[in-house]
Amino acid sequence: MATNITFHAAALTRSERSKLRNQQGLTIWLTGLSASGKSTIAVELEHQLLAQRGVHAYRLDGDNVRFGLNKDLGFSEKDRNENIRRIAEVAKLFADSASIAITSFISPYRADRDTARQLHEVPTPGEETGLPFVEVYVDVPVEVAEQRDPKGLYKKAREGIIKDFTGISAPYEAPASPEVHIKNHEVPVQEAVAQIIAYLDSKGYLPAKN
Amino acid sequence: MATNITFHAAALTRSERSKLRNQQGLTIWLTGLSASGKSTIAVELEHQLLAQRGVHAYRLDGDNVRFGLNKDLGFSEKDRNENIRRIAEVAKLFADSASIAITSFISPYRADRDTARQLHEVPTPGEETGLPFVEVYVDVPVEVAEQRDPKGLYKKAREGIIKDFTGISAPYEAPASPEVHIKNHEVPVQEAVAQIIAYLDSKGYLPAKN
Repeated sequence: MATNITFHAAALTRSERSKLRNQQGLTIWLTGLSASGKSTIAVELEHQLLAQRGVHAYRLDGDNVRFGLNKDLGFSEKDRNENIRRIAEVAKLFADSASIAITSFISPYRADRDTARQLHEVPTPGEETGLPFVEVYVDVPVEVAEQRDPKGLYKKAREGIIKDFTGISAPYEAPASPEVHIKNHEVPVQEAVAQIIAYLDSKGYLPAKN
Repeated sequence: MATNITFHAAALTRSERSKLRNQQGLTIWLTGLSASGKSTIAVELEHQLLAQRGVHAYRLDGDNVRFGLNKDLGFSEKDRNENIRRIAEVAKLFADSASIAITSFISPYRADRDTARQLHEVPTPGEETGLPFVEVYVDVPVEVAEQRDPKGLYKKAREGIIKDFTGISAPYEAPASPEVHIKNHEVPVQEAVAQIIAYLDSKGYLPAKN
């Protein structure tokens, strides 16, 4: 009776979990204007990582975060910050689990992205190592994004119906030194994804191709 | 130029991701008194699932959630509810990613656990299927938990230093029909974990043993 209270299995460390899963956990943080092509890249990247490289990857985007975990948040500055903070914390949990988190949010402020990066790279007490944070700048000129405007958001921003719209009436602070810089108006999505995967391979973050 | 805007890769559905990963995503929700043995079970369960069954599993517990995602929350009733709500949402993201989330929190209120269950089992718009929610009642008499008291919390609760302590000065609402009921003062941890894995196997949720 009560023999379990003297038994303490050691919790798996991050590196033990990584070894058992044969996978390096990390976060791929896409940032860029609305209609820059982040979601299209995220979808194709997730698909290739799972199907071709056999790793566990998962997209965090507006659909599964804004209507779930962050459904209590609005669009005030405070709520936008909290939105990005929670996304960064959840991405970190996925990365800690030896999975690849792919986040797809405009995330226009450098300070927010730097906070997300620090959360990953700097080990907090109890963590043996940091986690890679791969910032991917999905770069298109605002004129190109505005011309695409698949959801009519730029039009509404110009008409003043949407306030504080990134690129029109609110700033987008471009990354100073992202790990990957995609000039997304010049390349097809397959090429954009290949750039990201080439970076991951150059760092030895992925197992060999099947 | 701009060829990517006409290319739309289809996002992986939950079942496609599950098939590619050869894994059913689900959440194992441990509930029970402080010192009932939840964490010990969670640690051993995660280890066995990864090492012996080759599946992707991850523990969400006080260490990685309370000091990260939920570090803005205190212990008011509102904050406790929000704590459990966010844990349920994050567990669901892991389950949706074709991983096994193992949550290890007292979660004393039936309404909170039922909300977590519903979030998983009832598909929301855009989701093709629900996700399994496995409620595991880690059951020990409060006298046993109080005698163990590894962190001295029951003592502090009796002295009134900790207020609203589950089992002493706040209610624990036992699950009415949990998927697994572990009488944890009667069995060693290996037996407790075997009970959970036997349940998962009976439902066909795990790939065959290596």
